Amino acid sequence: MKEECGIFGIYSMKNEQDLVFPMCIGLSSLQHRGEESCGMAINDGGIITCHKDVGLVSDVFTNSVIRDLPKGKIGIGHVRYSTTGCARKENAQPIVTRYKKGNLCIAHNGNLTNTEELRNELEENGAIFNSTSDTEVIAYIIARERLKAHSIEEAVFNSMKYLKGAYSLLIMSSQKLIAVRDPYGFRPLCVGKLDGDYIFSSESCSLDILGAEFIRDIKPGEVVTIYNNEVSTQNFRTTEKDGLCIFEYVYFSRPDSVIDGYSVHKFREETGKYLFEQAPVEADFVAGVPDSGLDAALGFSKASKIPYGMAFVKSKYIGRTFIQSSQNERKKQVVLKLNPLKQNIEGKKIILIDDSIVRGNTITRLVKILRRAGVKEIHLRIAAPPFIGMCYFGTDVTNEDGLIARHKTVEEIREMIGVDSLEYLSLENLRKIAQNSNMKSFCEGCFTNQYPIEVPREIRKDKFEKIF
Amino acid sequence: MKEECGIFGIYSMKNEQDLVFPMCIGLSSLQHRGEESCGMAINDGGIITCHKDVGLVSDVFTNSVIRDLPKGKIGIGHVRYSTTGCARKENAQPIVTRYKKGNLCIAHNGNLTNTEELRNELEENGAIFNSTSDTEVIAYIIARERLKAHSIEEAVFNSMKYLKGAYSLLIMSSQKLIAVRDPYGFRPLCVGKLDGDYIFSSESCSLDILGAEFIRDIKPGEVVTIYNNEVSTQNFRTTEKDGLCIFEYVYFSRPDSVIDGYSVHKFREETGKYLFEQAPVEADFVAGVPDSGLDAALGFSKASKIPYGMAFVKSKYIGRTFIQSSQNERKKQVVLKLNPLKQNIEGKKIILIDDSIVRGNTITRLVKILRRAGVKEIHLRIAAPPFIGMCYFGTDVTNEDGLIARHKTVEEIREMIGVDSLEYLSLENLRKIAQNSNMKSFCEGCFTNQYPIEVPREIRKDKFEKIF
Amino acid sequence: MKEECGIFGIYSMKNEQDLVFPMCIGLSSLQHRGEESCGMAINDGGIITCHKDVGLVSDVFTNSVIRDLPKGKIGIGHVRYSTTGCARKENAQPIVTRYKKGNLCIAHNGNLTNTEELRNELEENGAIFNSTSDTEVIAYIIARERLKAHSIEEAVFNSMKYLKGAYSLLIMSSQKLIAVRDPYGFRPLCVGKLDGDYIFSSESCSLDILGAEFIRDIKPGEVVTIYNNEVSTQNFRTTEKDGLCIFEYVYFSRPDSVIDGYSVHKFREETGKYLFEQAPVEADFVAGVPDSGLDAALGFSKASKIPYGMAFVKSKYIGRTFIQSSQNERKKQVVLKLNPLKQNIEGKKIILIDDSIVRGNTITRLVKILRRAGVKEIHLRIAAPPFIGMCYFGTDVTNEDGLIARHKTVEEIREMIGVDSLEYLSLENLRKIAQNSNMKSFCEGCFTNQYPIEVPREIRKDKFEKIF
Amino acid sequence: MKEECGIFGIYSMKNEQDLVFPMCIGLSSLQHRGEESCGMAINDGGIITCHKDVGLVSDVFTNSVIRDLPKGKIGIGHVRYSTTGCARKENAQPIVTRYKKGNLCIAHNGNLTNTEELRNELEENGAIFNSTSDTEVIAYIIARERLKAHSIEEAVFNSMKYLKGAYSLLIMSSQKLIAVRDPYGFRPLCVGKLDGDYIFSSESCSLDILGAEFIRDIKPGEVVTIYNNEVSTQNFRTTEKDGLCIFEYVYFSRPDSVIDGYSVHKFREETGKYLFEQAPVEADFVAGVPDSGLDAALGFSKASKIPYGMAFVKSKYIGRTFIQSSQNERKKQVVLKLNPLKQNIEGKKIILIDDSIVRGNTITRLVKILRRAGVKEIHLRIAAPPFIGMCYFGTDVTNEDGLIARHKTVEEIREMIGVDSLEYLSLENLRKIAQNSNMKSFCEGCFTNQYPIEVPREIRKDKFEKIF
Repeated sequence: MKEECGIFGIYSMKNEQDLVFPMCIGLSSLQHRGEESCGMAINDGGIITCHKDVGLVSDVFTNSVIRDLPKGKIGIGHVRYSTTGCARKENAQPIVTRYKKGNLCIAHNGNLTNTEELRNELEENGAIFNSTSDTEVIAYIIARERLKAHSIEEAVFNSMKYLKGAYSLLIMSSQKLIAVRDPYGFRPLCVGKLDGDYIFSSESCSLDILGAEFIRDIKPGEVVTIYNNEVSTQNFRTTEKDGLCIFEYVYFSRPDSVIDGYSVHKFREETGKYLFEQAPVEADFVAGVPDSGLDAALGFSKASKIPYGMAFVKSKYIGRTFIQSSQNERKKQVVLKLNPLKQNIEGKKIILIDDSIVRGNTITRLVKILRRAGVKEIHLRIAAPPFIGMCYFGTDVTNEDGLIARHKTVEEIREMIGVDSLEYLSLENLRKIAQNSNMKSFCEGCFTNQYPIEVPREIRKDKFEKIF
Repeated sequence: MKEECGIFGIYSMKNEQDLVFPMCIGLSSLQHRGEESCGMAINDGGIITCHKDVGLVSDVFTNSVIRDLPKGKIGIGHVRYSTTGCARKENAQPIVTRYKKGNLCIAHNGNLTNTEELRNELEENGAIFNSTSDTEVIAYIIARERLKAHSIEEAVFNSMKYLKGAYSLLIMSSQKLIAVRDPYGFRPLCVGKLDGDYIFSSESCSLDILGAEFIRDIKPGEVVTIYNNEVSTQNFRTTEKDGLCIFEYVYFSRPDSVIDGYSVHKFREETGKYLFEQAPVEADFVAGVPDSGLDAALGFSKASKIPYGMAFVKSKYIGRTFIQSSQNERKKQVVLKLNPLKQNIEGKKIILIDDSIVRGNTITRLVKILRRAGVKEIHLRIAAPPFIGMCYFGTDVTNEDGLIARHKTVEEIREMIGVDSLEYLSLENLRKIAQNSNMKSFCEGCFTNQYPIEVPREIRKDKFEKIF
Repeated sequence: MKEECGIFGIYSMKNEQDLVFPMCIGLSSLQHRGEESCGMAINDGGIITCHKDVGLVSDVFTNSVIRDLPKGKIGIGHVRYSTTGCARKENAQPIVTRYKKGNLCIAHNGNLTNTEELRNELEENGAIFNSTSDTEVIAYIIARERLKAHSIEEAVFNSMKYLKGAYSLLIMSSQKLIAVRDPYGFRPLCVGKLDGDYIFSSESCSLDILGAEFIRDIKPGEVVTIYNNEVSTQNFRTTEKDGLCIFEYVYFSRPDSVIDGYSVHKFREETGKYLFEQAPVEADFVAGVPDSGLDAALGFSKASKIPYGMAFVKSKYIGRTFIQSSQNERKKQVVLKLNPLKQNIEGKKIILIDDSIVRGNTITRLVKILRRAGVKEIHLRIAAPPFIGMCYFGTDVTNEDGLIARHKTVEEIREMIGVDSLEYLSLENLRKIAQNSNMKSFCEGCFTNQYPIEVPREIRKDKFEKIF
Repeated sequence: MKEECGIFGIYSMKNEQDLVFPMCIGLSSLQHRGEESCGMAINDGGIITCHKDVGLVSDVFTNSVIRDLPKGKIGIGHVRYSTTGCARKENAQPIVTRYKKGNLCIAHNGNLTNTEELRNELEENGAIFNSTSDTEVIAYIIARERLKAHSIEEAVFNSMKYLKGAYSLLIMSSQKLIAVRDPYGFRPLCVGKLDGDYIFSSESCSLDILGAEFIRDIKPGEVVTIYNNEVSTQNFRTTEKDGLCIFEYVYFSRPDSVIDGYSVHKFREETGKYLFEQAPVEADFVAGVPDSGLDAALGFSKASKIPYGMAFVKSKYIGRTFIQSSQNERKKQVVLKLNPLKQNIEGKKIILIDDSIVRGNTITRLVKILRRAGVKEIHLRIAAPPFIGMCYFGTDVTNEDGLIARHKTVEEIREMIGVDSLEYLSLENLRKIAQNSNMKSFCEGCFTNQYPIEVPREIRKDKFEKIF
């Protein structure tokens, strides 16, 4: 399961700041949110220079690319998981477009639920599209609204009437940086300050790493505009409900981020604590599946006083190429990413913790590996409720057929995976933990199949891909 | 002086043809028309895969790129000189867009003269642009017309009312390949056949190199559509005048191409013959400036019976990087591209022939090199009239200040360059030679400052670049 | 502090085996032993194909390189930290040489202490060297001995008289694979079996990851030869003392390796346990410095019942380029690799564990970061004795001036680092723990300045580098 | 047929000169002598930095490589055709070795005829080899002699006793640059001056291109040493015979080079003149096969008064990748490198001139292409005698079976190729032309099978390759 985007931006008080280095660091700190492509656009006195490509930030922003990029006053950047095939490069962000009133540069985290309607409507009026991404649709809507509005921020504000779904946006015009979070706040977005410059990021960890001071989260429905070194804000609010994706706490965000007032690491530790309360068990040690289950395992260990231990060692150097070539039959015995710590688990009863089970393939494979290494008992604890709902808001869980918890009971899943016991965190406990967040409510669709807003009957992304 | 584009396309009778190899060969054969970027789009059952990048065809289409591209039924490709900076990659072609009726993929050679008006009008209606190229404007117009038309070819035909200027186009939809030449036929475009498949190319040399049979040139104003393996054609003609760029014969096209019925090599040989008639002179030998003056020099030699010889040897391996680093002061003595054949020219009277003088820097430098090598006399003959007009139709001569013949008499130019005599081909003789073409008239704007159609007061390309 | 090499080899029972994939996986699993360059040589019926370059295994062995490498019967590979400048590529291994009796291909982990003497002696007889590495010296000695011996394995055996220092070797001739460990066994080397094929590796984790069965460690002084699918062994033993580098347990090896009969993870857990016994302290939680202190921290937590926690989150995507550019003054606040988990440490008393302190810069920086994040008390525990001796046996600690423990007392170090208490593991406890190894004694030179064999008065590597 | 190497070097009067740019230009100007790999070594105060790789100079010496190379006082470089497979990179030059007396850096053009004997002898004494090239053998011999000599130049001089065959060498030690030409002068080597700095090159065209003044050719057997900004010279002469490879004039060298006092272009023009005298024929025009036959065609045209014309246009952009993929059956009709100028040759009688026929495949193919284009008659003239002998002195003609003139009469060859008449330049005329050179005699082995020195019974290169 993969988050599909992260966004990062800087508005400097100076006109000629080296933005490329902090942009690279900021984007790297969000790389876990999107490993396929990345890009940044720098605004130097109204001239926008954009570089984006398929690859990690450290692959795309080589020494020579960095040297060629200008200094500037405003910069926005993006990391994403892109889809396969031809469209990959074309779908990289930020997108840079030119319209009647000048330039519009957009980086988007999230997913619209009414892309198809908007696209149809725009096409009826003669629009053409260069990509399959909904970000281009957003650009069109803003450009259209701008023709009627007095400023770009007014146009952005007015566009929000039309945009349904999840969108955290960074928008750069020739002179302004605008940060937007949809009225439900599906995706996180926060702002900080470094030497007087404003820094926006999907997650607060970027601020820490850059040595910046965290100021606050952007509110659901908020439009923050920086122009002439001054900040102004407006709120487009159509709902009292919040809708932060609860999976940001469960899995997507880095543990060292604080999302809407709640430490991600603390959240996960709490899940471990509640899992112990729900289903205590005796064991030699508690281990997390690296890296997704580590924080919850710490919480379980602390609550249960059962020692924390390691079941696997992660092989950090195994390249993607090798992993792909290992898929064929005769290489089945190869254990590429997680090697069991045999000497530690042989003959032991262990509690193994992971954040979730989506299709169940990976955990089944890991359990087999542990069995082969001689483990005595495995008690699996999942730090979230059963995963049963598709996501329409910017992740890659767009096919419900594969969701194992839709089709099987917990006992059936336990048997399939081959563990001695299995317990999921209850929805009640999840909600109890989430109360520590500043958000009043959440999108828990993946656990409940109920979403804060209406969702499309089918996911259209595939359809466009096929046509395109 | 540089041509800005070449286009190439294939419509195969088979559905699953290896198009990538012939596309690569075809584009390579047009590479002299554009060395900066290139691309191709392959249509495999309606799925369009596009690959384009900055670089020569042989750099962009590496073994691994070739391997990853699919087979298909239709393919179009493009080579171009792109502008500098950020926009480079974005301006590469073909462009692939999606609109109400499906996909539209366009490769364009030429330049519109009313881009700004069209763009303004489109922007008034909410259009946004991803590039600074006029090709995106063409895509918009066609998409808009398509909403009112019964077929894509009808939309293309109707769009021609709005498009002013030079455009040879290859347009690919999910099922059709459409080839278009503007009503004046500014840029060449021809069609051939190979094993039943249709091949379109800016120049006929591509057909020869692929072993294809030349069928005919696309006529000015013609729209050729191939659909369901059937060809149909329509003619949008608003004028009786032809307007083929005469510089295609003088310099742009390859000598082994036949453009609108006339061999480019023969054309150039003729210019040499007429130059001899205009201004005979005794000399030890006649030499052309490689490679632009070689064909005319052959004609001069044949007509005058003065032996043909070599004045320079071309250094084919000198990389662009080295040429750039040689620009600074202390490397002035370095002779990178054309090394004088000292033993051949020392103490000799030579007739030196080139196709044109634009700013005069290069020829002045070459003359100095020959002087240093001990030449006795240099009689310079230019195989075209003095170059005095800007080009609005798809080349890079967009600044009239640098055109030396606007400011100086022939005698002043002779003196500046430092040759013993100088003669340009007369406009009358150029026209006499051109009568062998199937075209009835030509765009001779660069020699007359008179153009077949109205031209903008100022070139707008720069303006967009600056904003963007 | 860095290990300088890892070696890996395969001898297959089949003649035409795909060795490249398992070689890549094997070398990747040893990548922590050397990140700068890598290489492999494949023996296909006596024809040796070698590919090596600067970079990680996953960078050097791209899809296209892998495709071009042949199948074979024998393969050996190498990872290393190389020195800077011109010599880098030249010093990559395996080295492939040709001598009177055929080919000799060598991969070497370790460092000779008499390189200079051997080199001088060889040079007196006319030898020339293509690299600055001692591996080429080894090749010369073996080639020289081969002239007098009946077989390559006899030559290798006889060469051991001349070679002083640390050397684990894999040697491949046209038909044989020979594995050698120096008489003290400074560097680890083990053998396993996969589908009948023999696998040699510096560490046992490679065997686990490939799904191979661990057979045994190569003994100090042992020469194992595989020829015609048969294994034979000889022992060159000049000493009863063992000399395994104890730092292999402390830091170099992967925790999931078992070196000479003792699990590296278990060893490190034990250091944590003894550290608790030596210097117990109350705290909110115990944390390891990622990744070097994690295993010891687990042991401390288990022994002390103080919960295990996280103080830092590792940023795995930060590229080397960015780290280099962050060195300058104004970027000092940037926290690139380890971001403190502020919410977890604010106001807390923590026990922080690392494996060693060499120069003290890194730990001082980390302590400052924790202080800034609001930690209340830091009790630093080091899972090894003070580091006071240079290494002559294949690591990069070749300058004693920087070793902080040579110049300062523990109290002075504590003060410099800025922690509330500091305790090193005692040498006695280290030795007690090490008794679980099959090795009877160790090279503890880095902790005692006493070495199992005579060491040179000065390290010569630098000298050669400077000349070269 | 391919030359295998070119060498280039600079000794600057300043200690900190930018040598990389002129080295790159110099090597590029010799690129026709070797397109497979290249390299250069820069000596900066005794520290030698070497960069070499597979590829053209412009591919290997990218901007970032150039930036990383130091300034220096002495530099030597090399271009070569390397053999296939593993050994490629390893065989790139210059080679840099370290021996008793310091560093030895060598670039070699030519081929020893006693490599095997020398190698055996060295191996008997324990030598090991890192490459299959004879250059490493030369390094060994010099290193061995240096142990007995007072200076490196004395050692080089003494080594010449042992080295049989063709060798033009540039040798760089910490403080000296030594240029050597074997006693027969098989391969060219000359010296020039630029701003006081000494420039050595295989061909004089490099000097012209750099704006340097030609001083003189290095004499056969000469050893030129530059040390402390002073030049000294010695002559090792064992023969009165000269042995310059006559094929340097016929094909290898650039037409703008002057080799041993004779302009290559003039030489080739003369062959055309004599061909006309030998076998006059009436025709519409004379054309050379680009680029190898162009100079001779000019001479033929001048002598015969038959106009010079073009039969082919060269496609300069066709990449190597495409040429390789065009080898398969169904792409046979593709004409990649030389496109016939149909309009010029249709119905014409032409005289076609090339420098030589080795296997006859290429010319046969070209003739077929011309026939298909409608030529009426083709009279083929070859600017050298029939090619019947292998080359042992540094080219790739190492297999006599393929030499068509060994097996067929001229009439049989004419018939096979399919031309209307065929004439080779007679040996007498070749020798007459060659009298204008400063060389008194030549290696004409390829035309006579008689060589200036004893040649091996079989070429050993292959043998080493196979073992290696």
